[in-house]
This record gives sequence, C-alpha cells and structure tokens, in this order.
Amino acid sequence: MDVQSIFKFIGEQKTAFIGSVDGDGFPNVKAMYAPRVIEGKEMYFSTNTSSVRVAQFRQNERACVYFYKRGRFKYEGVQLVGRMEVLEDGESKRKIWRTGDSLFYKKGVTDPDYCVLRFTAERGRYYCNFKNFDFEL
Amino acid sequence: MDVQSIFKFIGEQKTAFIGSVDGDGFPNVKAMYAPRVIEGKEMYFSTNTSSVRVAQFRQNERACVYFYKRGRFKYEGVQLVGRMEVLEDGESKRKIWRTGDSLFYKKGVTDPDYCVLRFTAERGRYYCNFKNFDFEL
Repeated sequence: MDVQSIFKFIGEQKTAFIGSVDGDGFPNVKAMYAPRVIEGKEMYFSTNTSSVRVAQFRQNERACVYFYKRGRFKYEGVQLVGRMEVLEDGESKRKIWRTGDSLFYKKGVTDPDYCVLRFTAERGRYYCNFKNFDFEL
Repeated sequence: MDVQSIFKFIGEQKTAFIGSVDGDGFPNVKAMYAPRVIEGKEMYFSTNTSSVRVAQFRQNERACVYFYKRGRFKYEGVQLVGRMEVLEDGESKRKIWRTGDSLFYKKGVTDPDYCVLRFTAERGRYYCNFKNFDFEL
C-alpha cells in the first residue's frame, strides 16, 4: 500500500471520525461527514462555529482524522495525525460552501455559526486486517 | 433519550471507535470490535498486549469509546469518556476469552500477547441528528 492508494481510499469514504483532546486531557471522537475538499495533506470540513469541537480545537490544535471500512472479509482503516485550524474568513467559507448548506445555515455563507475546519496531516498509519503501515506526510 | 436506551443502542453496535492520547499529546482513534462484555459502566475489550494502543493506555489512561450508526435519515452517536486499564491477570483474560480466539493467540488464554482492556465510563454524550444529550455515569 502506498500513500497515493491510501488517499484514494480516503476519498471513497463517506464518514470521517475526528479526534480531539478536551480541556481535561481526555480524547474525544465524533463522526463527521467526509471532508468537502482534500488538497494534498490538507482537508476541509464544514461545521458549526458554536460546536464543542470548535471550542476544543481553538484551545488545542492537536487532531486526528480516521477513516474506516468494514467489509465482509477485510477491515481497512487510516489514521491521520496532525493539526486542526478553525477558519472564519470569507474566502475559506466560500471555498467549501454548497447550495444546500443554507438549510442549516439560515444566513448563508456569511452565517457566523458556519465555519471551516482545516486539518493538516503530518503523519499517518494504515491498517488492513492485522498489518500496519506508517507514513510521514 | 435516557441512559438505559443509550446502552441498548451501544449493545447493538458491531464496531467501537477507541480514542487515546499518544506520547506527543495527539488524539488517536482506532476501530475495534464491539466490547466482549458490558457490565454497568464497564466495558471489556480483547487486544494484543504488543499493540500501540496498549502502550498508550499504560502511559495515559484517559480514553473515550464512541459508537456510531449512520442510517438513511438518522445519525446516532454516543461518546463515552473515561479511563482504560490494561489487565493481564488470568481471571480477566478468562472472563472474555472465546474459543475462536486461539486462531489469533496461538498459546491460548495464557498467551502473553493476549490481554484485556477494561474501560470505565465517567460521562457521556449522545448525538442524534442535530441534538445532544449529556449524561454522567
């Protein structure tokens, strides 16, 4: 398995599991929709500015993003570890905006409760059944 | 949603997503099989003593366990936050041993590479679509 194939696998997944560290030093995990945009080792997610996750990442940028597929005979997972930024500038918000988002963000792309999470991966680990493969990015 | 219903939901899931904190303070996430045994707020998982996760929990017991179901119209998730112990005593290892495990642990229930993770939940958060519900345990 090479890094290109791993990113192809990531691009096929519909759910991302986001890891953060809370104010007491405990890990937190939450499912999110797959990233809106993947550019090299950067991934962009949309979220609510008022969410718990945003507050955590403002305090501690350490993050991981995990993708997982459980097939009938094959279990594949990829963990990327890196840093998460909270972006509220107009350019970033327009970059990943989709028309249907106005159902959730009534004020549209400038809605203050809509923001962007940009994850930058630093390293990763790919799992398939009982084998691992570590990589740097 | 009450805590009893949340634990019923947990008992129906086949996959658990385990959160830990690595030596550099980054969150880590990994999919595991559902807990073998759930007793009140304690959950027992089987794993390899030599695994990265075991090494992390020996250094830092802070943990979370996340369960998730993505239906056609409904997204449900439960995050439990608590502490993870690594158990290597015979009683704990026998407690959750299953016959088929000897395929993976050649030396059987006393195999030194087989151990038990016991998670004790302290608090939780249940998510369904866009609503949250926090609870203490």
